[in-house]
Amino acid sequence: MKRIVYEAENSLEGRERNRGAVHGMVHTLRDFGDTRFLVLRLPKTMLQCVLPAELSLPEDFCDGAAVRVYGDMRAEERAPGGRELLVSRIEVVSAPSEPMPVPIHKYKMGLSPETELDLRPITLRTARSRAMFRLQEGIVRGFRDALYQEGFTEIHTPKLSMGSAEGGANMFKLPYFGKKAVLAQSPQLYKQMMVGAFERVFEVGPVFRAEKHNTPRHLNEYTSLDFEMGFIESFEDIMAMEEKVLAYIFRLLESEYAAELNALKVQLPDISGGIPSIRFDEAKRLVSEKYSREIRDPFDLEPEEETLISRAVYEETGCELAFVTHYPSKKRPFYAMDDPADSRYTLSFDLLMRGMEITTGGQRIHDYSMQVAKMEKKGLDSQEFEDYLMIHKYGMPPHGGLGLGLERLLMRLVGEKNVRMCALFPRDVSRLRP
Amino acid sequence: MKRIVYEAENSLEGRERNRGAVHGMVHTLRDFGDTRFLVLRLPKTMLQCVLPAELSLPEDFCDGAAVRVYGDMRAEERAPGGRELLVSRIEVVSAPSEPMPVPIHKYKMGLSPETELDLRPITLRTARSRAMFRLQEGIVRGFRDALYQEGFTEIHTPKLSMGSAEGGANMFKLPYFGKKAVLAQSPQLYKQMMVGAFERVFEVGPVFRAEKHNTPRHLNEYTSLDFEMGFIESFEDIMAMEEKVLAYIFRLLESEYAAELNALKVQLPDISGGIPSIRFDEAKRLVSEKYSREIRDPFDLEPEEETLISRAVYEETGCELAFVTHYPSKKRPFYAMDDPADSRYTLSFDLLMRGMEITTGGQRIHDYSMQVAKMEKKGLDSQEFEDYLMIHKYGMPPHGGLGLGLERLLMRLVGEKNVRMCALFPRDVSRLRP
Repeated sequence: MKRIVYEAENSLEGRERNRGAVHGMVHTLRDFGDTRFLVLRLPKTMLQCVLPAELSLPEDFCDGAAVRVYGDMRAEERAPGGRELLVSRIEVVSAPSEPMPVPIHKYKMGLSPETELDLRPITLRTARSRAMFRLQEGIVRGFRDALYQEGFTEIHTPKLSMGSAEGGANMFKLPYFGKKAVLAQSPQLYKQMMVGAFERVFEVGPVFRAEKHNTPRHLNEYTSLDFEMGFIESFEDIMAMEEKVLAYIFRLLESEYAAELNALKVQLPDISGGIPSIRFDEAKRLVSEKYSREIRDPFDLEPEEETLISRAVYEETGCELAFVTHYPSKKRPFYAMDDPADSRYTLSFDLLMRGMEITTGGQRIHDYSMQVAKMEKKGLDSQEFEDYLMIHKYGMPPHGGLGLGLERLLMRLVGEKNVRMCALFPRDVSRLRP
Repeated sequence: MKRIVYEAENSLEGRERNRGAVHGMVHTLRDFGDTRFLVLRLPKTMLQCVLPAELSLPEDFCDGAAVRVYGDMRAEERAPGGRELLVSRIEVVSAPSEPMPVPIHKYKMGLSPETELDLRPITLRTARSRAMFRLQEGIVRGFRDALYQEGFTEIHTPKLSMGSAEGGANMFKLPYFGKKAVLAQSPQLYKQMMVGAFERVFEVGPVFRAEKHNTPRHLNEYTSLDFEMGFIESFEDIMAMEEKVLAYIFRLLESEYAAELNALKVQLPDISGGIPSIRFDEAKRLVSEKYSREIRDPFDLEPEEETLISRAVYEETGCELAFVTHYPSKKRPFYAMDDPADSRYTLSFDLLMRGMEITTGGQRIHDYSMQVAKMEKKGLDSQEFEDYLMIHKYGMPPHGGLGLGLERLLMRLVGEKNVRMCALFPRDVSRLRP
């Protein structure tokens, strides 16, 4: 029997130290006649390599090849990362079988979104895509780390269940060993159950919406950042926690993902003065008056209204984020707690960022009778929610939480117009591949 | 417009300092006549509260109530956490509507697994379950943190796709806007694609297996910890990385989850000397000879063989983990790289822990022609894998990776016999709820 001992030192520095070589993918070769630059794609950065005139390239060297490059590293201000490698030898580790069909070495390839998405396995190799999805990682890391610090426990709830839950019309259905299952459109009921066990919980995971929307802001599968917390005194505790989490995320991006922010020219929103909040009905009125716009749907915000509210709040306060509170009961789910001061409204909120909703949250009902009564009012059969109602029956603290759409937040951060570009492999009404 | 400012200090210390009160759920009241102890369930710990004889309880006080307790904290060696609260006042924040139907304050409730799972929304409140799922969090945290340190990027790949991939027979199928979709049984093909972009990637997410197994070690939905890395020199690089990750996880559990390890009497395996590895065919022979056992299936390990191999390796080396390498090509998927020395075997491995497989991994094919040839040999239509084959066509480094079953690892760690108990809300052939 032998034992494997970990030896590889795979940091860029480690690679150089141990093997006198750097490995990476040939991103592109820039040939200026007298000078040739090889741009090598490393895990997180690009490395500029200078090829001396006398160096002849291996026969199978080309864009897309995996190579090992030997040479001396030297400081060079104008190179990415402030250094470049003066190459003495190149070995091809593996070579592609066909030439790259699109110019992935360009920052903007000039492809249609459809083509870019069809070729996603290779177009994700561009500097722009890499920076986007490094930022996506940063958002998720920040979300989790902030909540760990606040005493939350991470959970993993099932994506397959019996269904009959909220908004069954928008759920994907599938056969499950002779039963009917649905795919979770949110971890809502499960995270509430877990508040009974851990008081504060969060989950990062996929959710599925069988909505027929085909818009630049909807995906049929996306990553939801959810938290739920007990012993709140008001739904504003949840908004305060979201503010804290977002501030943490922005700080993390600034400190650990500065190169990516820079590459994408991202300006982080300033929320140091707190995020302003405005009531739903006031926001409706404000926008209607300020922009001479008729109120067509008194119960929900149209996308254009979100944009205008966001703009109005920005003009008044300088903040690019805005909480809109007290959504109408009619449009909120059965678990939303009504405002005791006016039961036409709920103790809930959305968060708008740069003109678009990125979060929905609120206080939930914790009292058993109140929950059963609200289900009945909404025409739901409380018997079907027997499992869920156990928590109300056997004791729950006042609680609430929220769901934050990862792709939406990334989209607003980098100024991308199509949310599809903020998912590695987006799923929409007509797209199931790659 | 108003701004919400975060004020709540919700750590135990913060609660005491700011409000002179601790809030939590009544886990149980132990009444010894002259002394009464209230056990309060806090997010991560239990707090022992002493109720003076003269203190009368509020009318709606009972097990399961959410309460706010005022008093003085004092050191007490025999109490959990080394302290207890001498109570001066109790307020009920919210009360259950029915008495707790099972004794969740007991460490072992004495329920059948079926009943315990049926009542999961409340049985997850036991000290035992809470400790288990805190450890689950620790495993996931450790996995991620170790890989961040090694330069991996976290990814989120779709769970819905076109299908036609490996082992279609074991995939859940569903209608998707007039198309047919399948649920991912692993992020395999997507994480390989992402190696082309980031060289090193990982994902933590749900996977779905439509297998009819109804055993104590199978779930139809589970959480898979996956990583994939490029520029490996051998599949042993992957094993070495897994060893490093596991060592990191165990250290994290020791330092941050000591109370939970202690509560569950977990002995962490010692892998400081490296994890031994043995070839598949040698392991088969060893077990057959050592335990006088006939080899029935030469291409796969039976569960009993896994147990015996694990035992034999432990007896010889003292290590509770063992890599089994070079699985037969016949039983490994189309992307597995065959051993150039003997193409009946693959450059792959499983990791056994305390008698059970917890990981499958190996080197993948990176060469286009080799991959197409192997697909054809396996009777697959390479045309159906057009998206996947883009990476081989346009350039991939030698690479490989693994998938680690979260619930399986937790199960082996805590010595739980039924994997269902290691998922919050397990899904099996007959269970889709709660």
